[in-house]
Amino acid sequence: MENKLIGIVIDTLGSDKGPETVILGASLALKKYPYIKVALVGPEQLIKDKIVELGMDESRIHIVPAEDTITNYENPTAGIFAKPNASIIQAMKFTKANDDYIGMLTAGASGALLMCSYRFLGKDAKTRPCLSAVLPHAQGSYLAVVDTGATIDCTPAQLHEFAHLGRDLMKQLYKIENPRVGLLSNGAEPTKGNHLVKETYPLLEADETINFIGNIEGNKSLSGECDVLVCDGFAGNQVLKNSEGMAKMLIKDLVVYSKKLDKPQVMEAVGFLMKKYDFASLGGGIVLGTKKPIIKCHGNSDETTIVNTCDILVKYVSGDYIFDPNQVEMK
Amino acid sequence: MENKLIGIVIDTLGSDKGPETVILGASLALKKYPYIKVALVGPEQLIKDKIVELGMDESRIHIVPAEDTITNYENPTAGIFAKPNASIIQAMKFTKANDDYIGMLTAGASGALLMCSYRFLGKDAKTRPCLSAVLPHAQGSYLAVVDTGATIDCTPAQLHEFAHLGRDLMKQLYKIENPRVGLLSNGAEPTKGNHLVKETYPLLEADETINFIGNIEGNKSLSGECDVLVCDGFAGNQVLKNSEGMAKMLIKDLVVYSKKLDKPQVMEAVGFLMKKYDFASLGGGIVLGTKKPIIKCHGNSDETTIVNTCDILVKYVSGDYIFDPNQVEMK
Repeated sequence: MENKLIGIVIDTLGSDKGPETVILGASLALKKYPYIKVALVGPEQLIKDKIVELGMDESRIHIVPAEDTITNYENPTAGIFAKPNASIIQAMKFTKANDDYIGMLTAGASGALLMCSYRFLGKDAKTRPCLSAVLPHAQGSYLAVVDTGATIDCTPAQLHEFAHLGRDLMKQLYKIENPRVGLLSNGAEPTKGNHLVKETYPLLEADETINFIGNIEGNKSLSGECDVLVCDGFAGNQVLKNSEGMAKMLIKDLVVYSKKLDKPQVMEAVGFLMKKYDFASLGGGIVLGTKKPIIKCHGNSDETTIVNTCDILVKYVSGDYIFDPNQVEMK
Repeated sequence: MENKLIGIVIDTLGSDKGPETVILGASLALKKYPYIKVALVGPEQLIKDKIVELGMDESRIHIVPAEDTITNYENPTAGIFAKPNASIIQAMKFTKANDDYIGMLTAGASGALLMCSYRFLGKDAKTRPCLSAVLPHAQGSYLAVVDTGATIDCTPAQLHEFAHLGRDLMKQLYKIENPRVGLLSNGAEPTKGNHLVKETYPLLEADETINFIGNIEGNKSLSGECDVLVCDGFAGNQVLKNSEGMAKMLIKDLVVYSKKLDKPQVMEAVGFLMKKYDFASLGGGIVLGTKKPIIKCHGNSDETTIVNTCDILVKYVSGDYIFDPNQVEMK
């Protein structure tokens, strides 16, 4: 019976809200999705206590003991060697070794996540995993931004690889036959860009497996001109977070405006925008270029995020639906 | 009499809408601001014809003949040598040589603008000019982003210099005694950043003339935590253009929502947001680090932009008012 369950590996450490919140999320997910089982990676005694406290179904839980975490303040490479018992490492090793587990989720530090992905769950020695985000665009659909902060300083060859990973993601998520790939730059002209962009441009242009549409200017990032936006982790992090910050700022302005001038209709519009521009709904992003998918949750993830992310992971792997962040139930 | 007029140098070439539109703008500015005079730099015969056609006050116009332009598609450094008669070069030389002209405005290519600023109107051989933009932030005031696209690949020393220029701008524009300077990064922790940011951080931290508040994450760019946001031209261009693109996208969503669901109150809110997030109102940005100010207008500037920009330049130089883009009359 248990063999038919879909296994999900959950790193309980790394969330700002503590392992208790993550385990609570796992407990809710087990109740909501009867077809899954979970491997909880983290402090053994704490997990056992919470299982009893929450009355969780033990037959659908496997515990992988791990006590350490690699934080945002540590050098990720050094962290891997210093803390072999870190939960993120144990989670990846378990994910790789067990065929009935389809993938994992973690709220751990991005740097450690990337280095561990490459080392313990990498597709091959050449592919450098990257972190993708799926964002809403102006034409009503979605685009993938690769990379959004896993590799901060990139080489042209890495951006080229990210283009492949992003293309494959959009094929899988949205059944787009030939995703349009754009290169983020400071202007649309082929002559625009920093050194990295200028050296990456000819690589993408020469690659016949990529539907390269050229440079994308910043104000067109989310215009819907491309399905995949390629950039280094520093720039991609700006796209992701600036978009998030701007959406929040305009929504806040509308709330103030609505209250000040007593315009209730405007508050209804606020609800509409909050749903459309809920950047938390993919739980932070999907790591691409690994043997099995890893979903990176925000550091401030709570139990609702964990529940949603389990669902996203199952649907992503089964590949039988078109992902729409707006349909994800978020608090 | 003429000696008391405030002189403004206007590069008539470089606008996507052609020199005719720029000259029309100059004509409207002369009518609106009786205390200014203009130097029109560009094709002599065309300017003369337009002066007659528009019935402009010739006593307040000086023509500086120049036929060439350095475009976005050219290497700026090569362009300077190949086209010594380019209007942007002639405009800078004239601005530098004539004490009664307070500064200039141009819609020319950013790359050429920067190289010419450095060469023909630079403060000294060490200071590399940068392009600044003043953006609205979440706490109701404004911040300066330096650089927004003049120098795409920067050195730590250049970012350090931009911090000084941005600080001085905010002191002058907003009378802020000790502007808070932030460094754009992919996280708030001091350990975050690409190589450039990591090397710039200690320079800003060690500089006692700068009120350095540390790294600023992308979602906090416009949160109002800093008065000056320091970044290389590639990242700054993303901040500026992504913010602009996001504002437009949300505003468009609101328009569609308002029409579809027949909510007229929402259209009123749209008007409010359009005014607050009108990124065109500073006409593109101010070049800092030059002997006299240069305002860079957007490539698609029309006659209204030219009129407004003349006013901004006069007020900027006189330093007697707090700049508020919302007060600028835009079409």
